[in-house]
Amino acid sequence: MWNSPKVGILGGGQLGRMLVESANRLNIQANVLDAENSPAKQISFHDGHVTGSFKEREAVRQLAKSCDVMTAEIEHVDTYALEEVASEVRVEPSWQAIRTIQNKFNQKEHLRKYGIPMADHRELVENTPEELARVGEQLGYPMMLKSKTMAYDGRGNFRVNSKADIPEALEALKDRPLYAEKWAYFKMELAVMVIKTKDEVLSYPTVETVQEDSICKLVYAPARNVPEAINREAQALARKAVSAFEGKGAFGVEMFLLEDNSLMLCELASRIHNSGHYTIEGCALSQFDSHIRAIMDLPIPAKSLEIRQPSIMLNIIGGATPDSHLKAAESALSIPNASIHLYSKGAAKPGRKMGHITVTAATMHEAETMIQPLIDVVDDMRAQLAVVMGSDSDLKTLVPGLKLLQNYFGIEPAVEITSAHRTPDYMAEYSAEAASRGIKVIIAAAGGAAHLPGMAAAHTALPVIGVPVKGSSLDGVDSLYSIVQMPRGVPVATVGINNSINAALLAARILGSFDPSIQRKVEAYAEEARAENMEKKGTKLRELGWEKYFEQM
Amino acid sequence: MWNSPKVGILGGGQLGRMLVESANRLNIQANVLDAENSPAKQISFHDGHVTGSFKEREAVRQLAKSCDVMTAEIEHVDTYALEEVASEVRVEPSWQAIRTIQNKFNQKEHLRKYGIPMADHRELVENTPEELARVGEQLGYPMMLKSKTMAYDGRGNFRVNSKADIPEALEALKDRPLYAEKWAYFKMELAVMVIKTKDEVLSYPTVETVQEDSICKLVYAPARNVPEAINREAQALARKAVSAFEGKGAFGVEMFLLEDNSLMLCELASRIHNSGHYTIEGCALSQFDSHIRAIMDLPIPAKSLEIRQPSIMLNIIGGATPDSHLKAAESALSIPNASIHLYSKGAAKPGRKMGHITVTAATMHEAETMIQPLIDVVDDMRAQLAVVMGSDSDLKTLVPGLKLLQNYFGIEPAVEITSAHRTPDYMAEYSAEAASRGIKVIIAAAGGAAHLPGMAAAHTALPVIGVPVKGSSLDGVDSLYSIVQMPRGVPVATVGINNSINAALLAARILGSFDPSIQRKVEAYAEEARAENMEKKGTKLRELGWEKYFEQM
Repeated sequence: MWNSPKVGILGGGQLGRMLVESANRLNIQANVLDAENSPAKQISFHDGHVTGSFKEREAVRQLAKSCDVMTAEIEHVDTYALEEVASEVRVEPSWQAIRTIQNKFNQKEHLRKYGIPMADHRELVENTPEELARVGEQLGYPMMLKSKTMAYDGRGNFRVNSKADIPEALEALKDRPLYAEKWAYFKMELAVMVIKTKDEVLSYPTVETVQEDSICKLVYAPARNVPEAINREAQALARKAVSAFEGKGAFGVEMFLLEDNSLMLCELASRIHNSGHYTIEGCALSQFDSHIRAIMDLPIPAKSLEIRQPSIMLNIIGGATPDSHLKAAESALSIPNASIHLYSKGAAKPGRKMGHITVTAATMHEAETMIQPLIDVVDDMRAQLAVVMGSDSDLKTLVPGLKLLQNYFGIEPAVEITSAHRTPDYMAEYSAEAASRGIKVIIAAAGGAAHLPGMAAAHTALPVIGVPVKGSSLDGVDSLYSIVQMPRGVPVATVGINNSINAALLAARILGSFDPSIQRKVEAYAEEARAENMEKKGTKLRELGWEKYFEQM
Repeated sequence: MWNSPKVGILGGGQLGRMLVESANRLNIQANVLDAENSPAKQISFHDGHVTGSFKEREAVRQLAKSCDVMTAEIEHVDTYALEEVASEVRVEPSWQAIRTIQNKFNQKEHLRKYGIPMADHRELVENTPEELARVGEQLGYPMMLKSKTMAYDGRGNFRVNSKADIPEALEALKDRPLYAEKWAYFKMELAVMVIKTKDEVLSYPTVETVQEDSICKLVYAPARNVPEAINREAQALARKAVSAFEGKGAFGVEMFLLEDNSLMLCELASRIHNSGHYTIEGCALSQFDSHIRAIMDLPIPAKSLEIRQPSIMLNIIGGATPDSHLKAAESALSIPNASIHLYSKGAAKPGRKMGHITVTAATMHEAETMIQPLIDVVDDMRAQLAVVMGSDSDLKTLVPGLKLLQNYFGIEPAVEITSAHRTPDYMAEYSAEAASRGIKVIIAAAGGAAHLPGMAAAHTALPVIGVPVKGSSLDGVDSLYSIVQMPRGVPVATVGINNSINAALLAARILGSFDPSIQRKVEAYAEEARAENMEKKGTKLRELGWEKYFEQM
């Protein structure tokens, strides 16, 4: 019997929140270490929470004092703090496991000792172009350059297609500890949730994951068209990999299924995982239930991890506007058998995980049919265009372009104020992360010594369109020159002074090159402009003659 | 799209708590009116809750100010307060519906107008034996005497088997508004959850409910061995009944399936209902999800109300000890496919709903097989014996009997302090409700002017065993006379002064008459006593002779 045990959780995001849901139903108090009002704390009202960060030594110490067992919703915690408190409180999984796993290179070196199949990889020590070129000769191209630490959702990875990409790759991941990995040609990505208890290693069935812009978009449980032998083999591989680490709890294992039907481990997480959210509706015990039970040494019947009904999980990723996720959720309300989970994270940002939907059905085909309209909605709401301005005074210049994008092209841009001068760090971070958040084009508007478009271009590989904004003096020529006269190597697609319409059209053309429906609208817009000029105005001019026409202008 | 709507909930018990679970997942703020730290408030951390009772006018007014739509987890609310605030906030279902439904006689009179089949019933106006006898002639015996208001979980009901029971029945329900109902000979109890939305009336499938001591014990979803035609007919009847009321939300409809396969409405609740808890795991949308959606005019796909897999719900009712529910939950941890819901209500009392378990499986037979060990555990932990004492100073006298019950007979009694003099109201309530909480026998110990056993007997129809406790003067004879010399009509089974062993044995004999395993232990105890006397002592006496035997005593 449990005697009012308290579980401490490092991190109160959506994973922590769903852990708290499970703890609540077992009347187990969950003490969360994170910012005030973080998603997990909102559904857990008591005075045992700790305000702070899971990277702060003192906050971790404070949490340790208030709980019987400690766990983490994230790998990127201070494992030295965990090591210190491990003498007074149980830490699950072990700080050693978390420390090894949070460094992806060390994780792989460790797993290699246990005979886990993985893509060939090489450590970088000097991080010089020469060193990476030598590695490229060994691994071949394309290869993946990866940060050993703090890499997730595609951040910290750079695909090196050829030797020519090496300088850009090293620049993109500069100041990070690096390694390179041989490119894996896979036909499918699979994942298995593993539950390590005090005396056994259990696994949920093998699921199929679909990534978009390096972020998990869909999970099919069980994996579609995968023979039972591979399902079993993938589970066995996942359990073997997790067995290489000390400690209890849920571990997420991502794998590649290669063309020859062999399996290769992609990476492993020492925690509950996005690929396991389907278990809430799909299984009798969710990954969150199982994690709580595992770390508290409570029984987990293996049968409870079986899939009850074919399930599809769709992530709701923040789109262009702060409430785009609510639009997706609103659509989901009408989808049969759709269970909605919103994480209460406040305003959405492009690429931010705001919630998820799980659809269950008697057959996978039925589930696919039911969820398809929702996938269409989610696809439509993705922010592909970011519009940034140095100051809100630039907004009025942008409005004609924004309206055109919205009303004519149906493109909802993510609009932000980020100044190269006043908020240089945020501007750099925003630009650097834009691609991994699904953004394809950036429009940047600035006036005077207009550095924003050029600085944004310096921080991203995406095309940046610059809009010079006319200031109080110099008629905007200052802005124009500041934007257009970029050094060789970092181009900004500059449009005319205050010409946000052309910026919008240029963005639509770029997006249209990859999206036929937008391209058709670009063609239609051109056709309407032609008609306006050729037919309407031309006819009128011919009818009135130029003198009368001029009088009426 | 929803704009941060706030839902106000009257009542924060387990039903409110599960409503909050659903609201949380849609990021809808639920403002709960109930005592501080009530189960619903524990999983909802914000400053919008109201402390107070759903029966207080001022508290209801305060809640109304803080929300966009108001609902209730219970019928027994102040509907005049709801009527008053209905001009400023939407109340769902309507206060009219709640007011009619909370009075069971009015509920039935109302439903009668809509042609809903129900057991014949008669209103009582004078509440005299003569009036009830006249009604008995009309309805026949047995009949059910019922309180019109504040009746639930079997409280407020009294079965009148013959004319001779009339005085006792009227005494048991005195000071209440009454009506009588013809006895329904049913072969099965069925229930349907109905969801009333702004433009339709939807229903979940028909389930089978099993009551024990007038409290819901098990729900089988779908109902076992019930033809599809009856399933559909019961749903149609339930929808028709709910259509007779104004307002949106979930309604629980309980029905009898009679011997001739016809259906009869038993009663209706204007709220989420225990018979619908299975929907959390059993359906894509739970009754709580649907209720939130219905009152907020959000879509509810009819398909989401279908049963995904056969499900069995088992209530965890408070047993003898404050933590008996945790023992049941602990057993449930090892049951495959069992989802556990604990309500965090603090200490258990006999009959209190502390949580529930749902087991889902591919077939109902498999679910039955999986849950059976848990039903056995729950059956074993039921408190059938209550031990009450007037003061904690009586405890030492009771200890030998309590130890015998626990260690020898495996009977865990619910032990309470309740004084006839210091807490007369609690004593009366406790005794009056004991039978409906599943108690079969009461042991009452008191000293001096020992009124507790007699007063307890006056408030219950259960057998009461009195233990006279020896006080500081009169050698306990005062206690003995106070207990044994009861007036004709209200017996107390009195045992010797301080003889808690005999009280325990008498209780075991009474319980053993209905439970062969206890009866076998009573026989074994007698056999051991016989052996002790006959064989051990007798042999010793024969061997030693009486003089030596006496010297050694």
